[in-house]
Amino acid sequence: MNIEIPKKWYNIQADLDTQLPPPRHPATGEPLTPDDLAALFPKELIMQEVSTERYIPIPDEINEVYSIWRPSPLRRARRLEEHLKTPAKIYYKYEGVSPPGSHKPNTAVAQAYFNLKEGVEKITTETGAGQWGSGLSFACNRFGIDCKVFMVRISYDQKPYRKSLMQIWGSQVYPSPSDQTQSGRKILSEDPDSPGSLGIAISEAVEMAATHDDTKYSLGSVLNHVLMHQTVIGQEAQEQLAPEEAYPDIVIGCCGGGSNFAGISFPFVKDKIKGKEVRVIAVEPLACPTLTKGLYTYDFGDTAQLAPIVKMYTLGHTFIPPKIHAGGLRYHGVAPLVSLLHNQGLIEAEAYYQTEVFEAADTFAKVEGLVPAPEAAHAIRSVINHAVECKKTGEEKTILFNFSGHGYFDLSAYDAFYSGQLLDYEYPEALVKESLRHLPVIQ
Amino acid sequence: MNIEIPKKWYNIQADLDTQLPPPRHPATGEPLTPDDLAALFPKELIMQEVSTERYIPIPDEINEVYSIWRPSPLRRARRLEEHLKTPAKIYYKYEGVSPPGSHKPNTAVAQAYFNLKEGVEKITTETGAGQWGSGLSFACNRFGIDCKVFMVRISYDQKPYRKSLMQIWGSQVYPSPSDQTQSGRKILSEDPDSPGSLGIAISEAVEMAATHDDTKYSLGSVLNHVLMHQTVIGQEAQEQLAPEEAYPDIVIGCCGGGSNFAGISFPFVKDKIKGKEVRVIAVEPLACPTLTKGLYTYDFGDTAQLAPIVKMYTLGHTFIPPKIHAGGLRYHGVAPLVSLLHNQGLIEAEAYYQTEVFEAADTFAKVEGLVPAPEAAHAIRSVINHAVECKKTGEEKTILFNFSGHGYFDLSAYDAFYSGQLLDYEYPEALVKESLRHLPVIQ
Repeated sequence: MNIEIPKKWYNIQADLDTQLPPPRHPATGEPLTPDDLAALFPKELIMQEVSTERYIPIPDEINEVYSIWRPSPLRRARRLEEHLKTPAKIYYKYEGVSPPGSHKPNTAVAQAYFNLKEGVEKITTETGAGQWGSGLSFACNRFGIDCKVFMVRISYDQKPYRKSLMQIWGSQVYPSPSDQTQSGRKILSEDPDSPGSLGIAISEAVEMAATHDDTKYSLGSVLNHVLMHQTVIGQEAQEQLAPEEAYPDIVIGCCGGGSNFAGISFPFVKDKIKGKEVRVIAVEPLACPTLTKGLYTYDFGDTAQLAPIVKMYTLGHTFIPPKIHAGGLRYHGVAPLVSLLHNQGLIEAEAYYQTEVFEAADTFAKVEGLVPAPEAAHAIRSVINHAVECKKTGEEKTILFNFSGHGYFDLSAYDAFYSGQLLDYEYPEALVKESLRHLPVIQ
Repeated sequence: MNIEIPKKWYNIQADLDTQLPPPRHPATGEPLTPDDLAALFPKELIMQEVSTERYIPIPDEINEVYSIWRPSPLRRARRLEEHLKTPAKIYYKYEGVSPPGSHKPNTAVAQAYFNLKEGVEKITTETGAGQWGSGLSFACNRFGIDCKVFMVRISYDQKPYRKSLMQIWGSQVYPSPSDQTQSGRKILSEDPDSPGSLGIAISEAVEMAATHDDTKYSLGSVLNHVLMHQTVIGQEAQEQLAPEEAYPDIVIGCCGGGSNFAGISFPFVKDKIKGKEVRVIAVEPLACPTLTKGLYTYDFGDTAQLAPIVKMYTLGHTFIPPKIHAGGLRYHGVAPLVSLLHNQGLIEAEAYYQTEVFEAADTFAKVEGLVPAPEAAHAIRSVINHAVECKKTGEEKTILFNFSGHGYFDLSAYDAFYSGQLLDYEYPEALVKESLRHLPVIQ
């Protein structure tokens, strides 16, 4: 299907019936002003963050870079349908065709561009599995911006090749917690063997940006503008499905911070708000079940309480998730926009064990041929369950999911799965309860 | 450019003015009959091997699998042109979009299909860097064939993740030399630390197929039918260039056994035979310079003298190339068809050091965004040199090259390059001279 790259991003804030609770200052708890964010982000992105315009035009310079891999393929998983003997039609949007191998550059390219436009020369960020770090490295290299990446220690060790990829694109990569920042040094002094977490890595990247005038910070998920940049995925999917006269009954995406989930689903949630019937499902690891087990309340975005306080589903900012291989899903919170939609019942959430997720990944790789990243495999687990359900009920549902990234950098996780060394983690209820004692008090 | 997948393979044997010297039996030295090959290959592939039909139709079942990633993208490397400030136009065909990440499945899918059609249940093969092994594993998994892969030891150790990929697709992978075959055990007894070579791995795979009735053998390069299956690359490139009214002045491909080189170039050599002006360049490692330094003579295709004797450029079947990272280019010979064209002056050859190849790979990754495999980087080294030459002469040449595979499984080689640990190897003249003493005597 020969479609065009979208000319605009979709901003779901234009279609919300309730306003998004305002983000608050980590020190004072007062609502943030755009000025408060100016230390971390370029003005254009701050405007996008608070905008209620339904569509924001995509600059040609960004579309030119998108054109390296966009529009990404939309494919029907016919072999999987046959394998499952399901009457369901399964479609997937394949974001693994981007040079970094995931959906992340959809926003990385936009963020690097708007930083460059305002003369920013250095950007810091954090990364979990390394998908975001390599996405931003690719984008910064493209626009000639210096990039420093704080990579969650456990992933830094488990996925050395994502680190190599970032270095090929010219970034400096530090294992987090690192000795580069006060926040990092503090954690290391308490636990020299800390596996790290996205929360800790965010603290380090934010601290470095906040303490250097020539440096801004870039976040790979959670924020409104980040989710909005990802909507090229869902917009393309709608255009690609049109000729097939197909509209999904169920839209599924894995959910860590929420960006790939928002990217595939928000354009469909837009239809749902207008009365269209469609189920939208976010899939999480049972080891970090933010939407399924967390509280919807104000919490810090990071461990060191440097990032804004936002209203979201959270397991508490001090919660450090178990060392699952889906590093991109090891975040204690979830995007405020995704949280609000979940709180309003517009979306659903499911959580799965790591091994059942890899069983789904193994099935998909053998049947369809493509090897999913552990994050994307969470979506596939859910897809297979719903397709099998259709087999029982005989319903010919159309299921669309976001194949957010390939697993070429996660093969050590597959090795662990095949050799029976993959551990399952029960919902860490006690840890979460303890963590939730440390929520900020908002008047 | 929305083009169709080719409906037929191009067989260059139809356009040769001299017949290809016949392959000979490794034991008797007598010309091989199709029956001699029946122990190793299914009849349909043997027919293709000796066919002089110009085109051979591609079965729908094969095109259906091709459609997962074909037609592969043809892109213009505008950023590289600007970076080099060259008037040359640089186009590349990107084969890294296939699930195994290289051009190899173009023939793997065809070979697995024709084996299945004749009821073959088991296939053995060898692999260097793992590109071919993962290509055949993908194809065998697709058609439900049991696949055993002998992987050159040095690559087995350097590229563990390509091995993981083969295992995901259900193959058994053995480091070669292995204890699974007589040939392997013989080498190990002489040199327990042997890094292996394609020649040795071929011996093991051929031996296992020849000694098991239910098992056939599959080769990833060298043979006529393998090269023919790859011509979908060049045929697509010609169709994709047509709307741009572009025809290459130079066509470039890296060359180990010769299959990706033949795939991109043979449809253009066809035009050249008819009088069209086009330079066709095969690029090799200086550590294994078969076309540039070898003899054009009859030699064994493998170390243990089990594979047919063919007339080709060779460094001698006992020559074991230095441990360069471009494992797919570590073969003592080159395809008889490629050899004949070179001997007739229809194609040229160039050889480069490993580090200058990685310098080109680094440039391409940073400027164009895609990370090439070390094999493909050999072509890029040549492309850059010719583009820089155009800058000096001011000639606006059109250069087309085959980006045969991505480097996501070769990042350890990039790490070695950046850390200055990458070794260069001079042309191993003494080793080659010694090896060439052991050529077979053909009456």
